[in-house]
Amino acid sequence: MTLQPLKLHPDRLLPTDPEVRSIARRLLESIRDLPIVSPHGHTDPAWFATDAPFGNATALLLQPDHYVFRMLYSQGISLEALGIAPVDGSPAPDVDPREAWRILAAHYHLFRGTPSRMWLDWVFAEAFGLDVQLSAATADRYYDHITSALATPAFRPRALFERYGIEVITTTEGPLDSLAHHRAIAESGWQGRVLTAYRPDPVVDPEFEGFRSNLATFAELTGEDTFTWAGYLAAHRKRRAFFAAHGATSTDHGHPTAQTADLASHEAEALFARVIGTDVSSTDAELFRAQMLTEMAGMSAEDGLVMQIHPGSFRNHNPAIFARFGRDKGADIPTRTDYVHALRPMLARHGNNPTLTIIVFTLDESVYARELAPLAGHYPALKLGPAWWFHDSPEGMRRFRHAMTETAGFYNTVGFNDDTRAFLSIPARHDVARRIDCGFLAQLVAEHQIEEWEAAELARDLTYNLAKQAYRL
Amino acid sequence: MTLQPLKLHPDRLLPTDPEVRSIARRLLESIRDLPIVSPHGHTDPAWFATDAPFGNATALLLQPDHYVFRMLYSQGISLEALGIAPVDGSPAPDVDPREAWRILAAHYHLFRGTPSRMWLDWVFAEAFGLDVQLSAATADRYYDHITSALATPAFRPRALFERYGIEVITTTEGPLDSLAHHRAIAESGWQGRVLTAYRPDPVVDPEFEGFRSNLATFAELTGEDTFTWAGYLAAHRKRRAFFAAHGATSTDHGHPTAQTADLASHEAEALFARVIGTDVSSTDAELFRAQMLTEMAGMSAEDGLVMQIHPGSFRNHNPAIFARFGRDKGADIPTRTDYVHALRPMLARHGNNPTLTIIVFTLDESVYARELAPLAGHYPALKLGPAWWFHDSPEGMRRFRHAMTETAGFYNTVGFNDDTRAFLSIPARHDVARRIDCGFLAQLVAEHQIEEWEAAELARDLTYNLAKQAYRL
Amino acid sequence: MTLQPLKLHPDRLLPTDPEVRSIARRLLESIRDLPIVSPHGHTDPAWFATDAPFGNATALLLQPDHYVFRMLYSQGISLEALGIAPVDGSPAPDVDPREAWRILAAHYHLFRGTPSRMWLDWVFAEAFGLDVQLSAATADRYYDHITSALATPAFRPRALFERYGIEVITTTEGPLDSLAHHRAIAESGWQGRVLTAYRPDPVVDPEFEGFRSNLATFAELTGEDTFTWAGYLAAHRKRRAFFAAHGATSTDHGHPTAQTADLASHEAEALFARVIGTDVSSTDAELFRAQMLTEMAGMSAEDGLVMQIHPGSFRNHNPAIFARFGRDKGADIPTRTDYVHALRPMLARHGNNPTLTIIVFTLDESVYARELAPLAGHYPALKLGPAWWFHDSPEGMRRFRHAMTETAGFYNTVGFNDDTRAFLSIPARHDVARRIDCGFLAQLVAEHQIEEWEAAELARDLTYNLAKQAYRL
Repeated sequence: MTLQPLKLHPDRLLPTDPEVRSIARRLLESIRDLPIVSPHGHTDPAWFATDAPFGNATALLLQPDHYVFRMLYSQGISLEALGIAPVDGSPAPDVDPREAWRILAAHYHLFRGTPSRMWLDWVFAEAFGLDVQLSAATADRYYDHITSALATPAFRPRALFERYGIEVITTTEGPLDSLAHHRAIAESGWQGRVLTAYRPDPVVDPEFEGFRSNLATFAELTGEDTFTWAGYLAAHRKRRAFFAAHGATSTDHGHPTAQTADLASHEAEALFARVIGTDVSSTDAELFRAQMLTEMAGMSAEDGLVMQIHPGSFRNHNPAIFARFGRDKGADIPTRTDYVHALRPMLARHGNNPTLTIIVFTLDESVYARELAPLAGHYPALKLGPAWWFHDSPEGMRRFRHAMTETAGFYNTVGFNDDTRAFLSIPARHDVARRIDCGFLAQLVAEHQIEEWEAAELARDLTYNLAKQAYRL
Repeated sequence: MTLQPLKLHPDRLLPTDPEVRSIARRLLESIRDLPIVSPHGHTDPAWFATDAPFGNATALLLQPDHYVFRMLYSQGISLEALGIAPVDGSPAPDVDPREAWRILAAHYHLFRGTPSRMWLDWVFAEAFGLDVQLSAATADRYYDHITSALATPAFRPRALFERYGIEVITTTEGPLDSLAHHRAIAESGWQGRVLTAYRPDPVVDPEFEGFRSNLATFAELTGEDTFTWAGYLAAHRKRRAFFAAHGATSTDHGHPTAQTADLASHEAEALFARVIGTDVSSTDAELFRAQMLTEMAGMSAEDGLVMQIHPGSFRNHNPAIFARFGRDKGADIPTRTDYVHALRPMLARHGNNPTLTIIVFTLDESVYARELAPLAGHYPALKLGPAWWFHDSPEGMRRFRHAMTETAGFYNTVGFNDDTRAFLSIPARHDVARRIDCGFLAQLVAEHQIEEWEAAELARDLTYNLAKQAYRL
Repeated sequence: MTLQPLKLHPDRLLPTDPEVRSIARRLLESIRDLPIVSPHGHTDPAWFATDAPFGNATALLLQPDHYVFRMLYSQGISLEALGIAPVDGSPAPDVDPREAWRILAAHYHLFRGTPSRMWLDWVFAEAFGLDVQLSAATADRYYDHITSALATPAFRPRALFERYGIEVITTTEGPLDSLAHHRAIAESGWQGRVLTAYRPDPVVDPEFEGFRSNLATFAELTGEDTFTWAGYLAAHRKRRAFFAAHGATSTDHGHPTAQTADLASHEAEALFARVIGTDVSSTDAELFRAQMLTEMAGMSAEDGLVMQIHPGSFRNHNPAIFARFGRDKGADIPTRTDYVHALRPMLARHGNNPTLTIIVFTLDESVYARELAPLAGHYPALKLGPAWWFHDSPEGMRRFRHAMTETAGFYNTVGFNDDTRAFLSIPARHDVARRIDCGFLAQLVAEHQIEEWEAAELARDLTYNLAKQAYRL
């Protein structure tokens, strides 16, 4: 088995036409070294609070990354063999992390043509300086090299944060979180900017596991009677203020659909009384989530937190995997999602407010040109989140720009989100986004739709300014 | 602030690959000077009847163009500041048109990557001979230059009509329109061909504002008892004949959905009795619109008027804007639209008639390859209207050709529609369409799917012949 | 009328960028001569059993090909004029096949930009050695040349099978078929591998013509009481075994939707009792088809037959054509199709079985990136069938690869299906697929996403290995 060289080509992901590529290169050169602004993601604030070293290669790059292990699982490799821990009370698999790594290495060809391959190769070459491709033949070399590097100071979380020029990063916490890690970071004297975002799903979604006991904790934390409608809303206001005091500039809402509602106050109160009971109907649960999006938009209009809506994922599609391994195991599947009718109640109430920012994401690309671009190209409050989740890939980002730009323009978008739990993929993902955007802009220049100086301005806006402005960072 | 040059590049919008571009150039050269055939649009026939000069730059290019002011509105600029007139009885804003123009100029970067930018640049450079880009620094220069030009004979409507080689243009009128302007044009001795099209929505849609009083006027105009089913249908027949006598070759139908129905005669009569009453249910309203599409197809089979169906826009999505400013203010949003089931009743009745032409448009691009191309590639009566509204843009037109051609072929399409209210955008839009079509054809040639002589025939067909044939012009 | 040369360009369908094209050429060169594996299609096994000569040009290339005659029909040419035989008892049209051929020839321009044009040109040039384009002027030359060639031994079915390097081909038969032709082929000593596939729609779909009498025949063939639930299932098991004994490695299921169900046994039994009665409701019919997909998946888990699901075609959309000419006359139209909710009952039951293979196809491209790629990128049992029917075209195949690859990877796909009734289009279609795949891979190489040696491995996998493995051939 011959070893294959691993090298990140400087022109990777740029357009192949030589003239367009040369424009793209110039654009990329002009923004390549801008700091990373990461306004939405799921890194663990404990990393930055404790600055403890990451473990081994498998623990860092395979086990937490559902993009990676879902592909292996789809080809018949059990999650047990990869050392994924069950949550059903069965004993954790006794898997040598090196063996799990060897499985990944032996199946690395499965990732050809996927973004995981690109992100991983970036991490291997750029972060760890590896120069041969991952394969069965190089599995151990990789495992040893990465695992030893992780033990060095240069690979501690704060060092990596600084090495990759992260200007600000936002994590996501539920309203019941104490924000102790964020407080610890602030009190540590370290200058890294790690913010939180308010994600109230556990106390907003009546179908969330433990909804009623979550409300009880919500009451304890806020001193409000969260089992009355007025007290419940007041608790949100207090907790939002608490998050804002810890640096939050945004909220985030992960709903099964984009449905909103704008009930009369007494209707909302009656609905609340029903959903805090037992035996909540799915209709009431959906209506309550819908109403709460409008309530949250109203609070954002008051307190200035930017609102993010992430709808359209069918969570935990695979019941066997959910029962054994729990959430976030690669079995969330996008669904067809309506926005035109769904968002109307909220937009009718708050959409004309130019001081409010509501950022909407979608997993259903068929709505890009049909629904979201026309809505964002009209309502002052509405902005378009970047290509999300399965679509935060070269093709996905290209489709986003091609479908959105003509109707929404660039300035109703908000730059890039890496949205990741995999820390080292952050710079890798921003690298991909910058390349795709520069390629798209270069194409507009080469077709003489815009001038190159305009493309250079846009490159900087898409990479840096729009995220800072939209998220008020 | 340095001034940036404005220049229309001769290769704009052509493919960037040098070989493909050179084929595209040759194709474009061969059709560039063909006359403009504009079989569907919303220009005002009064322009050609009175030949009065257009007003100032703002009144010509900003205030009537919802593509332009919706983008400004989406970024927090009020419609009042742009001088858009309210319809709610509040006083018209006292806005200096020059100030409104300055707002557009200062925000011109918002349009980067949008078709409005291309159309406006074409108008600025080609129609007005401006050679610096619009910006805050050039706002007054633009305003003065355009406004003075408009006062000259060369910028009167008829002169522009001739300057841009318009062979024929079709406007759209409701059945209650007297067609006085069209009569005046015909009697004026001017040779310009300005036709009308029969758009009966105000007397077909029970949810149209003033439906019942519209029916009363319909009765006065036709001498029929339009509150009986038979009289109502007879009134349509008479009014269609009146429109045809004024040059109409087509009808147009703007429905919320593409639903058609084919009720038994007594059912249709009973339905009619219900919808002319008060308290019409939305189900009955939808069913009546559906039935009327089939009735209209039947009349087209009799009188030879080409039928156009424009479904799928959620009109007046923003209630505050609708209340204050009325219709057509940039708040119409496309919706997901079914055609396969919806059109079946009408197609089962009339779809096999090879002498009938029904042209269907869509705002839902997901149906291009899935529904419309397969339907048009089978039913003799069905033809595909071009990329519409938000999609009459370079990307939109490309997606249309890429998705439609393989299954429907080119010859089940009907050429280009500019579909505009903005007169000077007509040549700009035809220019874009010709470039995109030539680029698409050049790609087929470069991939050796067709020969260049075939592409040249097709370029002429797509630019000129298909519109003339399909619309019987 | 000058004659236009006909020549298949060696670079047809390859990317136009010179660098990308040269990579694509090398990839194509490396797989061009691989044998054809055709695991799904609708050729007639009688051809290979009897090896009788095909008839004339019209009978071979026009009358059986609904891609071709639907386009002519859409432009106002009657099916009678093309000699399509009615099934409504009216006399067969007395059409000289040469006259029908002349109609095709005179309208050959309609096919510009369609895959039919490419497939036909391949057949004309490659199979018959014609060197001028088909047109009114060459109609007779074509007709005579092709018709005489068909009378020669080189154009007998078995000779063509060998000439085009077909390693294995699968036909599709209903459970009531005797498989006599397959037996005759096996007993003939000819080495060509012609397999069957088990397509039970006539005894699975309660809305299939003659469902109850089909069940009676099913009983006769199997000796089971097919009017009891247990006997009915046993009959399927026996018949599947009979097909497997005749070489079948797969089943195929053509349902209106992708709906599956997983009823308790007594519910399924009660449902079966209802659907074998008269007056079956459409809800019950749909639920029964849904339940049977899960039952069939269970049997596949037992007997190892690969399961194919082909949902989403609205069959016989044109009632007049169906009444006069019957099925498969170009009037089947794709519909919007849900997979995420629809497949869940079956996947919850069988999706985690890594020894089971369920191959899903779609006519609704909007689900590629949104639903199917995420599902196949997770469930071990699920694989993605190639671009299907209206989408088995250059653009369609490109959209498939662009939308599917990033999330599903290449290795959750199953290579190419030609899926054709038109024998000579088989090599033409494989030629197109190989070119498109090599072009797509070359693009990945040119963008430095994968190395050229990886692309070469993939080219061989997509062309040959994946089909062999997925279909267990």
